[in-house]
Amino acid sequence: MKIKIAAKILDANEKIAAENRQIFDNNKIFTINLMSSPGAGKTSLLEKTIKYLREKEKVGVIVGDIAGTDDALRINSLGVPVVQINTGGACHLDANMINNALEDIPINDINLLFIENVGNLVCPAEFNLGENIKVMILSLTEGHDKPLKYPLMFQKSSVLILNKIDLKPFLDVSIEKIKVDVTSLNPSIKIFEVSCKTNEGIENWTKWLQTLIS
Amino acid sequence: MKIKIAAKILDANEKIAAENRQIFDNNKIFTINLMSSPGAGKTSLLEKTIKYLREKEKVGVIVGDIAGTDDALRINSLGVPVVQINTGGACHLDANMINNALEDIPINDINLLFIENVGNLVCPAEFNLGENIKVMILSLTEGHDKPLKYPLMFQKSSVLILNKIDLKPFLDVSIEKIKVDVTSLNPSIKIFEVSCKTNEGIENWTKWLQTLIS
Repeated sequence: MKIKIAAKILDANEKIAAENRQIFDNNKIFTINLMSSPGAGKTSLLEKTIKYLREKEKVGVIVGDIAGTDDALRINSLGVPVVQINTGGACHLDANMINNALEDIPINDINLLFIENVGNLVCPAEFNLGENIKVMILSLTEGHDKPLKYPLMFQKSSVLILNKIDLKPFLDVSIEKIKVDVTSLNPSIKIFEVSCKTNEGIENWTKWLQTLIS
Repeated sequence: MKIKIAAKILDANEKIAAENRQIFDNNKIFTINLMSSPGAGKTSLLEKTIKYLREKEKVGVIVGDIAGTDDALRINSLGVPVVQINTGGACHLDANMINNALEDIPINDINLLFIENVGNLVCPAEFNLGENIKVMILSLTEGHDKPLKYPLMFQKSSVLILNKIDLKPFLDVSIEKIKVDVTSLNPSIKIFEVSCKTNEGIENWTKWLQTLIS
């Protein structure tokens, strides 16, 4: 019974996700679903990425949070169109929330859409939004045991961004173990090491991202 | 319709949580539901707390993870009884999982039970397990914007442990802002600043904890 309900919810979500994808494709918009634990640096990565790309690409952003508008205000100050979704308790974005938010995004004027999901290493991975790729961030401060404890998100993501590498000297963390475990879960995942604080690695990531769009 | 289903699930959970609580009370077990984002330091705090308390209190641990047994193995090496729950995808523990796990905990031989929840700053706050208090950990590396973005967990917790204060010099984070925002959400919350790496603050926390048990 429980499983039946869950399947129905996910069926409905897949249907609307396919509609969203049609809208993205029709408007030649490349869409990224950005996911991570709380505080891993989703908004910081967006800020850095937008600064590098805003002269070259026409960026739009949808920001999901349980409550508050901090992140949308940070993005808005960069001069790109942004819509804030408050989920009112829900621990993830779903395709219908995105479908509604698209009404407030100038879809004719953008070619790259970032969707910043709710900070959660679990449920967001289960809900397609219609995106082209899922990108996840793991902060080095979270430790090297996360891939095997939260396997689904690592399996579903096309890209893993290892953030806060500036803190590496002060942490007991093995980047090597992260890479080995992540690759065992998802052999084709692309991994970038970055610091949104020092800008290390940001250019690598944005240049690679541009190759996907064009 | 959606709301009705959710209400039913939570009703059922409350019923089993009350049963669990009865078991804890009958056996004079003080129970703590320990919650945080992934990688904030739940297992590290448990390790430190158990080392301080194991001569004085009879501790048991239930560990929840989506997958893996890393945390249970870490706790097991300290010589206290531990049960690992693998939720198989679920992003939180519920009362029924605890009810089942209690079969494998020597409830006559413990007076302090820690339940380490799945790493998630959202859903665990919605599911009572029958615990006496909820304790949450926020790693300083997650940033000072978390209380207003994930209000429910801060509202439901009796204690906030600010962990990784050894990293403070390398972070752009205001402990003052965290305290102001948390207190606005939950005026009676008790806040401890600790470092599981340097042991700073651990004794304060464990001594306070002991006053609750006796």
